[in-house]
Amino acid sequence: MKQAMHVLSITARGSGLLDISHQVESWLAEQAIGDGLLTLFCRHTSASLLIQENAAPAARRDLERYFAHIAPESAGYEHDDEGPDDMPAHLRAALTNTQLSVPISGGHLMLGNWQGIYLFEHRRQPSPRQIVLHLIGE
Amino acid sequence: MKQAMHVLSITARGSGLLDISHQVESWLAEQAIGDGLLTLFCRHTSASLLIQENAAPAARRDLERYFAHIAPESAGYEHDDEGPDDMPAHLRAALTNTQLSVPISGGHLMLGNWQGIYLFEHRRQPSPRQIVLHLIGE
Amino acid sequence: MKQAMHVLSITARGSGLLDISHQVESWLAEQAIGDGLLTLFCRHTSASLLIQENAAPAARRDLERYFAHIAPESAGYEHDDEGPDDMPAHLRAALTNTQLSVPISGGHLMLGNWQGIYLFEHRRQPSPRQIVLHLIGE
Repeated sequence: MKQAMHVLSITARGSGLLDISHQVESWLAEQAIGDGLLTLFCRHTSASLLIQENAAPAARRDLERYFAHIAPESAGYEHDDEGPDDMPAHLRAALTNTQLSVPISGGHLMLGNWQGIYLFEHRRQPSPRQIVLHLIGE
Repeated sequence: MKQAMHVLSITARGSGLLDISHQVESWLAEQAIGDGLLTLFCRHTSASLLIQENAAPAARRDLERYFAHIAPESAGYEHDDEGPDDMPAHLRAALTNTQLSVPISGGHLMLGNWQGIYLFEHRRQPSPRQIVLHLIGE
Repeated sequence: MKQAMHVLSITARGSGLLDISHQVESWLAEQAIGDGLLTLFCRHTSASLLIQENAAPAARRDLERYFAHIAPESAGYEHDDEGPDDMPAHLRAALTNTQLSVPISGGHLMLGNWQGIYLFEHRRQPSPRQIVLHLIGE
């Protein structure tokens, strides 16, 4: 049994869902571990991780609108140190995932046919985001 | 240290919460790993995983009604390729879990007394769902 | 490769977010595993886990108010065996996390600068909560 770790640094173009499946698969392809478990960990509280539909762009737009609706800006938050998109970003991160673990087989993520791994950027002015990748297996 | 993997195929009778704890425990009982970590991964974006109250059926009905309420049908979604329950299914999956990891001791899930593991089917016409089980330990 | 397990018992003072990062780090410091993966598992369905902003107390108050708002008391729940904060507690737990996995490097959690690990107690009269810690690595 072995393990490997890496920090993926990703900057989104703006708020919304960004498919990072290919970057994750690229790193996996370089590792000497074929079967095991990959854990992604987002080191931020205003960006998060989500596994979602990778086929229909309309589904991703609906998802972005939905989270804008249930965790809206201008809702009278006490915390707004960094502007109106600060607190909604924390709420949208809390409703989605800081961490995801995906089983690996034959060197590939065992995602379903319609699943992609997304970085969900919640700030309008994105900065570089660090996603820790931890792989264990053999 | 060893690992084991299996794909559990489950078809719900309709939308809602389906207790899969027994199927998971049955597979665990056949493995030569007593202490470790079990990860469940749902290979779909319109069904998800949830650990919830296993005693009161009324609590499960309230949960199902709640998710129907906060991620409703007929909310003017752009994506409705597969009918009115398509996009709400993705939203309800995004709000719950694609993956869950549970520590194992003495060959058993370390669930609390009142916890069960549920497949949360979000489509009205369910199809077979694949849940990957990954176990690591000794 | 080695593993270690421990059950952390924590009682909150009341409902809300309680930082447990220090207790987790203290246990980690006693283990002979420097690099690996730590999984926290909450053995309850009316308390949960959340990684959030550890700097601004106002952000935590906004988070608590937000979950009180989207999963309110007095919403006509069928299940209220244990009082008006019973069913909202299950809903708030379902929207956040029962389990979190965090990569470990050099004996420390690889949290971001602004991240803390919180027990999110959802009941007004808290009782002792068990958080299982599972560590694997070398």
